[in-house]
Amino acid sequence: MSEASNSSNPLAPTEPLAPTEPTELTANVAPASTSGRSRLKITDVVLTPIAFRDPPLLNSAGVHEPWALRTIVEIHTDEGICGIGETYGDIGHLERLRTVAPALVGLDAYELGPMHQRVAAALRGQTGDDKHGLTGKISAPGTVDRVYSAFEVACLDIQGRAVGRPVVDLLGGAVRDAVPYSAYLFYKWAGHPGTEPDQWGEALDPVGVVSQARQLIDQYGFGSIKLKGGVFPPEQEVDAVRALRDAFPNTPLRLDPNAAWTPGTSLKVAEDLDGVLEYLEDPTPEIAGMAEVAAKAPMPLATNMCVVSFEHVAPSVAVNAVQVILSDHHYWGGLRRSAHLASICEAFDIGLSMHSNSHLGISLAAMTHLAAATPNLNYACDTHYPWNAADDVVVPGVLSFVDGSVAVPAGPGLGIELDRDVLGRLAENYRTCGLVQRDDTGYMRKFEPTYERKRPRW
Amino acid sequence: MSEASNSSNPLAPTEPLAPTEPTELTANVAPASTSGRSRLKITDVVLTPIAFRDPPLLNSAGVHEPWALRTIVEIHTDEGICGIGETYGDIGHLERLRTVAPALVGLDAYELGPMHQRVAAALRGQTGDDKHGLTGKISAPGTVDRVYSAFEVACLDIQGRAVGRPVVDLLGGAVRDAVPYSAYLFYKWAGHPGTEPDQWGEALDPVGVVSQARQLIDQYGFGSIKLKGGVFPPEQEVDAVRALRDAFPNTPLRLDPNAAWTPGTSLKVAEDLDGVLEYLEDPTPEIAGMAEVAAKAPMPLATNMCVVSFEHVAPSVAVNAVQVILSDHHYWGGLRRSAHLASICEAFDIGLSMHSNSHLGISLAAMTHLAAATPNLNYACDTHYPWNAADDVVVPGVLSFVDGSVAVPAGPGLGIELDRDVLGRLAENYRTCGLVQRDDTGYMRKFEPTYERKRPRW
Repeated sequence: MSEASNSSNPLAPTEPLAPTEPTELTANVAPASTSGRSRLKITDVVLTPIAFRDPPLLNSAGVHEPWALRTIVEIHTDEGICGIGETYGDIGHLERLRTVAPALVGLDAYELGPMHQRVAAALRGQTGDDKHGLTGKISAPGTVDRVYSAFEVACLDIQGRAVGRPVVDLLGGAVRDAVPYSAYLFYKWAGHPGTEPDQWGEALDPVGVVSQARQLIDQYGFGSIKLKGGVFPPEQEVDAVRALRDAFPNTPLRLDPNAAWTPGTSLKVAEDLDGVLEYLEDPTPEIAGMAEVAAKAPMPLATNMCVVSFEHVAPSVAVNAVQVILSDHHYWGGLRRSAHLASICEAFDIGLSMHSNSHLGISLAAMTHLAAATPNLNYACDTHYPWNAADDVVVPGVLSFVDGSVAVPAGPGLGIELDRDVLGRLAENYRTCGLVQRDDTGYMRKFEPTYERKRPRW
Repeated sequence: MSEASNSSNPLAPTEPLAPTEPTELTANVAPASTSGRSRLKITDVVLTPIAFRDPPLLNSAGVHEPWALRTIVEIHTDEGICGIGETYGDIGHLERLRTVAPALVGLDAYELGPMHQRVAAALRGQTGDDKHGLTGKISAPGTVDRVYSAFEVACLDIQGRAVGRPVVDLLGGAVRDAVPYSAYLFYKWAGHPGTEPDQWGEALDPVGVVSQARQLIDQYGFGSIKLKGGVFPPEQEVDAVRALRDAFPNTPLRLDPNAAWTPGTSLKVAEDLDGVLEYLEDPTPEIAGMAEVAAKAPMPLATNMCVVSFEHVAPSVAVNAVQVILSDHHYWGGLRRSAHLASICEAFDIGLSMHSNSHLGISLAAMTHLAAATPNLNYACDTHYPWNAADDVVVPGVLSFVDGSVAVPAGPGLGIELDRDVLGRLAENYRTCGLVQRDDTGYMRKFEPTYERKRPRW
């Protein structure tokens, strides 16, 4: 779209100035440094796929399986400092992490730009898939950012530990001392089929949804509410949102059907919930569909499905498809690149919130450091943490919710420590659970054989 | 432009989540930190306005006076570590720096987000002016970024010194080990009126321009050339560019008339120089004018005049006004925010180059660290440094041009040291030179009383 890359002009460079190969660069620069300059050379990258218990949460693609998968990343350096990160556990992603990890050995933990380049080089244009159907199209650059992210977080953890500073300081310092999260409600079964009901119980109608909200708010103090929709016909979900409004008259509400609706249905819901929702998230698939809805919807539209990588921003801006972007450092290329996304949102007057998948405490800590350093965060962040906290790999005591907010961990780096006993147990879960790929649709079909994933469904 | 700020929806927050006051935040967070956490509390901010010799360089607003003004910023911390920055010296800017400086005492040198907020609060919506007429409109947010920038650079210098790392590492590490700059040619008088010719001599026609280019390239090894135009009728400047093309057949060329032309004249020049310029910089004033030219010009248009602050980006993107942005950390809010600009350029397929004003070595070092960490820098950077290097406040030995490039200083922080003798001499120059505000037009009028600043002129 830009003349700058117009190949008819032989003088216009189409490629950036050739970066020095990271290895050469180290060779060129390091010897000239002062003798006091520390090195944090990466000596090893350890990847541990884990599985942790997950309740039967419903969404537009099916239902959560009994196990959620993640990968824990540990990066070791020659100074003995180790940093940690958390990312997706699906086998395709795990294999990409495994492909990339050896290429990072030898880099300095501050060489994040060169690391991004090495990740891109190692992946050779591979593109991730979205098998579970909840995160939109994944591009080749987006795949690089997804793989790079967990390594970047681990390196920032290393940097922070090395200098005795929390990661938030490496991101520009805290503009808030605690980060507000929202109550993330799901339609859910009472328990996984064949098991006893879990502590949360069933939520399949407005009464169940309100009851779940009360449980979460009583326990965590959340000051805003998000309902995952796309499960029941839209009018039933509108009723649930209205019930939430009645039960919590002053609490900001959001609804996210994961693109389950046509533009026409989306507009009908948007009109029905005018004045009730602070934003409507991904009512319909793709940028064009969202733009069609956004042109008439009375509330902002938010997304974590149609704008999930930097190359989606310009096409979305061009048609004003979304008014809020749900940032997620796991796929926007780590904490620093998520800060870039925040700047883009500020420059283009786009609101900023934060997305989550099923995750544990390393991700929660990283999200909290990032959000604390982001001035233009406009909304409380999403988190699945309450659904999975019982299996957290992080040593307890640092991450806790007070009035719905998590205080920024103050210790060096991410400010958290891995619980190695729990990590071992979750790694064993992974080996024995039989899952290597999230498949909400397949799991649903075990119980409703005629179930089909369909988007839009209504 | 976004629904997110639509005041008709009572649920849509129009303001970011209220940031904690920096002082409170420190009080809240610091006590919980580990005992090993270092503090870098700002104890003093010293501002030293300086004047250094400047040759009679011509531009569309007049001619450079014999003295160029800058302000040197020194930030002291309770750990005894001091960081430096360099910024504009015009009296309005200096007074804003003086207004803000006391508000920074007590902040930690890592608290950059809170610092930006304190700068904004202290300035209370003040808006800088562009008295010399070469940098376009300055907005209130742009004024905050201009003032904040030098403090941010000094704080990054402090951080780097504290941890024994070059600033480039704090920006994500070097993706190139040296940064290419361009030969910045000016039409110029032989010397300031009443003085002997300077070492560069006269350049008022194609022969003089080519001769100046040879001098600069012989001495510095530059591999690309920028000519400051807007001085003579466009056809003469086209002739000068053609003479440069003949003399340097393979060297990328740029022409910058500082908005001296109408859109019609701009297009005529653009067509005349099709295949000759890598980009045409600010041919005509304002985003609308640039868009009119860009729609038909055969080469990319670049700017450091119509897009000079984050709020200009969206209006420019909407009409594809520019295809290259000349970044400048002095007005884009420092090094980290300039990295954000780079990400915006990448996301919107906009080329990235770097602007300069008359500057000394602190700025050159900061520009070099930033450019070395910026993957999508597409062009060699501008620098006035050769015109002012003789008066540099930086201890010699670190900053040198090899084949037109400056190697990234490898020492901690910016990797440079202030020469206090020179600083004292330049501060004395400031006290005695009689200038407090750049005025290229007024200086020109001393010799050509009928001279008028007119934009567009042709």
